[in-house]
Amino acid sequence: MVLQPHLDTASDVPLYRQLYGYFSALIHSGRLAKGERLPATRELAGSLGLNRTTISAAYELLESEGLITGQVGRGSFVAGAAARGMFDWDEQLKSSAGVIPPAAAPSGPDAITFATSRPSEHLFPLAALRASCEEVMAGPDFAHILQLGSPSGYEPLRRYLLDAARAEQLAGPEDDVIITNGCQQSLDLLGRVLLHPGDKVVVEDPVYPGLKTLFQEAGAQLIGVPVGPAGMDIAALEGALARERPRMIIVTSNFQNPTGATLPTASRAALLRAAQAAGVPLVENDIYGDLRYRGEHLAPIKSSSDGGHVVLLRSFSKITFPGLRVGWVLAPRALIARLAQSKQLADLHTDQLSQAVLLRFAESGRLAAHRTRVLKAGAERLAAVLAACERYLPPGSHITRPQGGMNLWVRLPEPLDAGELLARAHRENVSYLPGKYFAVSHWEPGSLRLSFAGLTPEEIRHGLATLGTIFSSELERTRARYAAEPAPAMV
Amino acid sequence: MVLQPHLDTASDVPLYRQLYGYFSALIHSGRLAKGERLPATRELAGSLGLNRTTISAAYELLESEGLITGQVGRGSFVAGAAARGMFDWDEQLKSSAGVIPPAAAPSGPDAITFATSRPSEHLFPLAALRASCEEVMAGPDFAHILQLGSPSGYEPLRRYLLDAARAEQLAGPEDDVIITNGCQQSLDLLGRVLLHPGDKVVVEDPVYPGLKTLFQEAGAQLIGVPVGPAGMDIAALEGALARERPRMIIVTSNFQNPTGATLPTASRAALLRAAQAAGVPLVENDIYGDLRYRGEHLAPIKSSSDGGHVVLLRSFSKITFPGLRVGWVLAPRALIARLAQSKQLADLHTDQLSQAVLLRFAESGRLAAHRTRVLKAGAERLAAVLAACERYLPPGSHITRPQGGMNLWVRLPEPLDAGELLARAHRENVSYLPGKYFAVSHWEPGSLRLSFAGLTPEEIRHGLATLGTIFSSELERTRARYAAEPAPAMV
Repeated sequence: MVLQPHLDTASDVPLYRQLYGYFSALIHSGRLAKGERLPATRELAGSLGLNRTTISAAYELLESEGLITGQVGRGSFVAGAAARGMFDWDEQLKSSAGVIPPAAAPSGPDAITFATSRPSEHLFPLAALRASCEEVMAGPDFAHILQLGSPSGYEPLRRYLLDAARAEQLAGPEDDVIITNGCQQSLDLLGRVLLHPGDKVVVEDPVYPGLKTLFQEAGAQLIGVPVGPAGMDIAALEGALARERPRMIIVTSNFQNPTGATLPTASRAALLRAAQAAGVPLVENDIYGDLRYRGEHLAPIKSSSDGGHVVLLRSFSKITFPGLRVGWVLAPRALIARLAQSKQLADLHTDQLSQAVLLRFAESGRLAAHRTRVLKAGAERLAAVLAACERYLPPGSHITRPQGGMNLWVRLPEPLDAGELLARAHRENVSYLPGKYFAVSHWEPGSLRLSFAGLTPEEIRHGLATLGTIFSSELERTRARYAAEPAPAMV
Repeated sequence: MVLQPHLDTASDVPLYRQLYGYFSALIHSGRLAKGERLPATRELAGSLGLNRTTISAAYELLESEGLITGQVGRGSFVAGAAARGMFDWDEQLKSSAGVIPPAAAPSGPDAITFATSRPSEHLFPLAALRASCEEVMAGPDFAHILQLGSPSGYEPLRRYLLDAARAEQLAGPEDDVIITNGCQQSLDLLGRVLLHPGDKVVVEDPVYPGLKTLFQEAGAQLIGVPVGPAGMDIAALEGALARERPRMIIVTSNFQNPTGATLPTASRAALLRAAQAAGVPLVENDIYGDLRYRGEHLAPIKSSSDGGHVVLLRSFSKITFPGLRVGWVLAPRALIARLAQSKQLADLHTDQLSQAVLLRFAESGRLAAHRTRVLKAGAERLAAVLAACERYLPPGSHITRPQGGMNLWVRLPEPLDAGELLARAHRENVSYLPGKYFAVSHWEPGSLRLSFAGLTPEEIRHGLATLGTIFSSELERTRARYAAEPAPAMV
């Protein structure tokens, strides 16, 4: 057939999008049939008088939608995914409750991403992990590890964690442990056994997007309590408890994601008293607690709770290897037993090779040795990010000053919008997450999260120099415009 | 305090339970305070004139409830777990929707369990797996594997599976793959993105309890369609589709759990036509398909579906190592993309060490070699279980005759009740799962599942000889009683 798209160069819709729309309509109507070959990009660019990259962009979009499929050396063919007779999955699927941040845009060796809260893979102790894995594979338990396991977790690891928690005065005689695939699954399982649709859950504001979206999809109503430099605002929490009667409180005691804030000892006690008085379970998310670079260790809230109110979440992901999915929940036995039922329905049990390897890694003392290195590297990175923020961010910026963890929170001066400026940062090969992804009920456009643990001090300085230039130049530009265009009188 | 329990030896409640109730009340009322020491079992047995094992059983129950805690060499102490001021978790927790079968009771080297649908760990190719793991650990990608991954799965494994599905004519250009923690999680994620509370789901009756309970807890209403020796009853399915307007159909094409039934080719086509006509997604659970010991391979329903109706579930668990939790979903891109969002909320992504090791195991040809051994062993076990059923089960028993997989379904002659007889089998160190765990809307008391793949032919013969004796003697006893006690006239 002859291709004659009507393209409008004056339109706000980019040309590649218009071209995509043209092909999409042809495919959906069946006029371009399944298996038909599309013209080569060079050929179509010539016949339509367009840039070849415009054609490529349109084809890429068609392919990402499953409408065409490319075969190397042969060209692009109509896949007919949404052609007549095709099942319309979009109509069947439940809508997604929330926005999960997209994967950080720039990648490649030169990209500097402050967008992911994860450790640096350059610090991974590969030899020590290999040795742990060899020992597991040579051990008498290997075949048993590969066999179907228990929803509660690999028993030797469970016992190791429970003993360690007892030694740390965290676990009472009524407590037990369940192994999960990390903190995200621990939160999911807690939602499954505790929440009914419409239930209210108190969370920090701002909060980790994976937590926010998870509970929104579960039909919960989130009550955000502001987090300041000293963690959750306890007076605001007490108000929320009295007013909202929530089913659950979720709090991060150490180095909160995204703010890096840590709850002081007095606030921990006040928070526990408030939860106890209201009869509401308190979930203490402590996956960053092992990563303190400065200051004194504070005992988890769990250690003061002899009433069984507190559920402690911990994980190997941040301190060791996030690709191995192993975390755990420490809580009273009645809850742990119910979580194990739910775990069995969710995915039977957590992968046992990784459980066994991480147990060996911990038991052998290799985890402790690795932690020493991680703390040293973390301290350097934290110092680098604080110094670089001071040096490069425009005057009027506010930053938090965490004592550990992986994240720091920035508030840029008005009228900067961290979301709007992200595209420019991406063009300069730097990324971060704007505050909107973390907002529960209160959102400051100038806020953003910097995740520093995965970068070298050099990358941190370099990335912040780039961001500082973008933010400062935009600030100058907007202020110059405001000065040139005085606001009209309010009438 | 002086301990004076009032124990009733004539009661139906066992003495240890009565003693447990006595102590439990003392602890809950605070009359036995936290930290108080309970008398030693020998001492209390003497003073109450009871057997020492009765005291031990009561103490064990108290300990399992967290009311007391034992300290080796020191005795048992009141933990006060449920004492005044303790948080009542049972009041907070949502009730569990269904009964998950308990772990099989007898264990130890002499126990013969027909209760678990899993491979034999004696067949695990440990050296081949070790070699695969060594290769991954020595490879250039190792640090990357240990780093945070993608919700869609480890990209090289995803591509391997998609290419294999294309080579098998299973995947069209519109299809994609997501890696999950096995079939159980694939089902969970499908429920999360497709089902609203109250939605109807068509399942086989009888069906795998993990599927039944999962969807019941998600608030779905299960519509059971009978499964005969030739799989799901297609006429009954068509009736259910017209009457119930379900959101989803879940069917096992090969060697269904629990019946072992396989859908013939004609039924596959009819089932697909019915699903298409009703506009209902068809989930094809094919985790046993690789385990065909006899007869000809039948193409999955997915391979006939160019309309994108069919979602294919597969897994490494049954053919390799269930302790490594890796399965996948093959389906149109729109669904896979939505499943990946849900997967991220559920647990971020599947463990990457196991994904990489299983990829290496498959790519290297070791999986194919292992499969040859597994098929040979499976054929022997299947022959053994069929022969032993013929030989040992009482006359009037019916069995299915699967051509592969891990399970076989038995219907004992009336009035035998497989659930009631289980305790007797446990005493003889043999276990199985009674039909009640699998029933959706129709339950035959005489039905039970025999999972044979994890046992040697010798164990299968031995176990069935034991079961045959129990069933036959019970049948004789009840028939003798019926003969001796004619039923009274109906008036």
